[in-house]
Amino acid sequence: MNLRVIGRILGLLVAATSAAMLLPLLVSVFAGGSDWRVLATVLAAGTGLGALAAWAFRGAAEMQIREGFVIVTLGWLAATFVGCLPFYLSGAIPTFTDAFFESMSGFTTTGATILTDIEALPRGLALWRCQIQWLGGMGIVVLSLAILPILGVGGMQLFQAEAPGPSPDRLTPRIKETAQLLWGVYCIISVAEILALLACGMDLYDALCHTFTTMATGGFSPRADSVGAFDSARIDGVITFFMFAAGVNFSLHFLAVRGRFTRGIRCYWRDAEFRTYLAVTLGATAVVMLSNWRHVGYEFLENLRFSSFQVVSILTTTGFGTADYEQWSYLAHFVLLTLMFIGGCAGSTGGGMKNVRLLLLSKHAWQELRKLLHPRAVYVVRFNRQPVGPDILTNILGFFLLLMMVTVASTMVMTALGLDLVTAFGSVAATLNNVGPGLGLVGPTDNFGHIPALGKWVLVLCMLLGRLELYTVLVLLTPELWRRT
Amino acid sequence: MNLRVIGRILGLLVAATSAAMLLPLLVSVFAGGSDWRVLATVLAAGTGLGALAAWAFRGAAEMQIREGFVIVTLGWLAATFVGCLPFYLSGAIPTFTDAFFESMSGFTTTGATILTDIEALPRGLALWRCQIQWLGGMGIVVLSLAILPILGVGGMQLFQAEAPGPSPDRLTPRIKETAQLLWGVYCIISVAEILALLACGMDLYDALCHTFTTMATGGFSPRADSVGAFDSARIDGVITFFMFAAGVNFSLHFLAVRGRFTRGIRCYWRDAEFRTYLAVTLGATAVVMLSNWRHVGYEFLENLRFSSFQVVSILTTTGFGTADYEQWSYLAHFVLLTLMFIGGCAGSTGGGMKNVRLLLLSKHAWQELRKLLHPRAVYVVRFNRQPVGPDILTNILGFFLLLMMVTVASTMVMTALGLDLVTAFGSVAATLNNVGPGLGLVGPTDNFGHIPALGKWVLVLCMLLGRLELYTVLVLLTPELWRRT
Repeated sequence: MNLRVIGRILGLLVAATSAAMLLPLLVSVFAGGSDWRVLATVLAAGTGLGALAAWAFRGAAEMQIREGFVIVTLGWLAATFVGCLPFYLSGAIPTFTDAFFESMSGFTTTGATILTDIEALPRGLALWRCQIQWLGGMGIVVLSLAILPILGVGGMQLFQAEAPGPSPDRLTPRIKETAQLLWGVYCIISVAEILALLACGMDLYDALCHTFTTMATGGFSPRADSVGAFDSARIDGVITFFMFAAGVNFSLHFLAVRGRFTRGIRCYWRDAEFRTYLAVTLGATAVVMLSNWRHVGYEFLENLRFSSFQVVSILTTTGFGTADYEQWSYLAHFVLLTLMFIGGCAGSTGGGMKNVRLLLLSKHAWQELRKLLHPRAVYVVRFNRQPVGPDILTNILGFFLLLMMVTVASTMVMTALGLDLVTAFGSVAATLNNVGPGLGLVGPTDNFGHIPALGKWVLVLCMLLGRLELYTVLVLLTPELWRRT
Repeated sequence: MNLRVIGRILGLLVAATSAAMLLPLLVSVFAGGSDWRVLATVLAAGTGLGALAAWAFRGAAEMQIREGFVIVTLGWLAATFVGCLPFYLSGAIPTFTDAFFESMSGFTTTGATILTDIEALPRGLALWRCQIQWLGGMGIVVLSLAILPILGVGGMQLFQAEAPGPSPDRLTPRIKETAQLLWGVYCIISVAEILALLACGMDLYDALCHTFTTMATGGFSPRADSVGAFDSARIDGVITFFMFAAGVNFSLHFLAVRGRFTRGIRCYWRDAEFRTYLAVTLGATAVVMLSNWRHVGYEFLENLRFSSFQVVSILTTTGFGTADYEQWSYLAHFVLLTLMFIGGCAGSTGGGMKNVRLLLLSKHAWQELRKLLHPRAVYVVRFNRQPVGPDILTNILGFFLLLMMVTVASTMVMTALGLDLVTAFGSVAATLNNVGPGLGLVGPTDNFGHIPALGKWVLVLCMLLGRLELYTVLVLLTPELWRRT
């Protein structure tokens, strides 16, 4: 284990995360808030100490796959620590556990909150809370790869350890360039959303906050009523569109931006995962609309507006709310609950198990049925016309089992702390899938403040495991990782 | 598709199922019950018509794998139909839907009931209700293979289509002999339990009924308070022991019976699935005892008695109750809920996903973690020292996905019928895993009587899918099965 290279990269990550506080600091100063002191202090101390560590371990660049896993896991913990300091030191969140929970919920784009009065946060801190979701959405390690002059060697390890989905695409042979392109596309679409929200009459501050958390499919909002506070069909439509876009593989956006218009559109359609994602979205919206037409009695356009917003918000694991969907039917609730587990596309900022896994598993299950009739025939699962090897299928199988084991173990701890079954399971499912709102006492109109401290730390671990898709964190438990070579 | 051979075997199955009503008929006559007429009628008509069909299609013996799936699925439906007639025709269960539900719950050893007053059933019918669980436990098709002079050719197809677990063992080269040995062992252990229960002071009728449903891990009881009605530590102990034994692979019992005593014991220990099953039982009992020690305040022996009984009852998906475990802690509830999904061993009468699948998946998940560090190394999962090929792992993967899809689709229908999420999910999970009692409004102290008729048919399908482990039924949906060759 090369500890010097780990120290160097963690230093750079801390410095970069702290430097990102410049925007909330400016907002705080501009708004005349009391929170500028704490933001300035953390910004200066974090950037300084991080840079110092990076300088002390300068020259260390040799890295193997094992260091990659350690760096990404510790990197996310370090960023979360830095991110929670403004909340904790300002007293806006009185306990360290709660501040760390909120920060982890931000970076992992979960969107679960322990705050009871969100609008009491000063403007600078409220913006920072949304901004950490944006940073975590595309990935802080990928961001560092894009902007910091480090390591040509270990980049791919870091990239793979953080990127969501079973097989991340390399858009270009050089990983630094891939990271830059992804972040570039992310920024371009974010600017487009800001402009669209401004055009709908939102002010700049709200547009900035909601764009950050839409594009990250995070779901934090500086408003207590979430997006419902604006009560505008146009704003709902814009946010629905951008949530959907944030749930698409950003490699597709890159290809579409690069191609001409018609060729660009075709890029999406040619991708089997995108077609699955679109079909799930449209199918679920249709079922929810039918249910709401019978049970709630919305008019058609109103129904379309609320139903599509909620379906996309939950499917992409964003977690914004407009209508009070707790009043909808049991069928609608169950559809939304199922969507949580499906999530967005691989290579998007959405959580869940990802559409590509669902698609590959469905094709595989169908082949297994056919195999029963012709046991000696060879069936091949294809994805975008390429054959998918048994390696990827067994990898997904391992992923599922680990997901189940973590779910069961975590839920067991939560019940041992005295939570009822629905709340215990709901809180674990909502954090492990990076959704945000759960079930029972952590439902969409409740918050996580009342969970015992130990339970909050279990959920913090769930959020991290979910965002890094289990393997990257759990591999730290294998003795081989720590053995000398 | 060879319709003649299908007709012939279905005829034999109907005849065999009807003939099995001789025992409840004798009990009814002996007890002077009013139900002897209906039992005698169904016995005579069913045996006669079934034998007639078998005679009409005599000589048909050629069978391929596709006929196997059709025969097993239709055979279970036919047996369920015959089994429900005494309940329906006697008026003991007034609607056909309810009678069919109760019969399917019996044959699949689920143990879910629509009866509100179990003790109102006449003695003959109550015994028949328990006896169909015993018939379904080891498998009606396997029984037919053992006792009826049919088909040397297609036997293996039928056996595999009905036998639980990813890879059924052939104890002998001839499938008829294997079926006879399995049923022989099943009968021997059943007789041992009857004698043990009589020695504890139970009367013959109760001993017979409870042995039928213990050995089948079914859980029906002629008593409203289930096994709790006897309030005897010795009876609880005997039933705990035999439930545990019924959850073990019957091939192991066969090997143990054949070997001498010390060699017999070693047969169990050498089997990795048995060790997993034992570890799960002991671990879960320890956790539940700890929880009950803190929360309920049982004495040690009382705690051991109630906790081990409930753990084994739920793990083997039997579903008997003694203590009112709804009063236990959330932790104990969650442990019991998790056990439902694990179930017994492959080749046992227990439901659930089976310990062997859990074991193979855990080993595989661990290998996947190690593979991350050494991507080019080859890791092999072993079971009882034999390497397990990727075929079996991908088969399990397909099984899981189908299980999830069926769960989601069925729960969605149940919510559309107006059931709340917990009841909808609980009823589907309890029937699909062949457990019996569910959650919410179908919990251990409730029954399934209030579910809408359409919902009952969905659950009937879930029970059948669960008992035949999905593939055998779902393969009927592939167009290839129905194509002419």
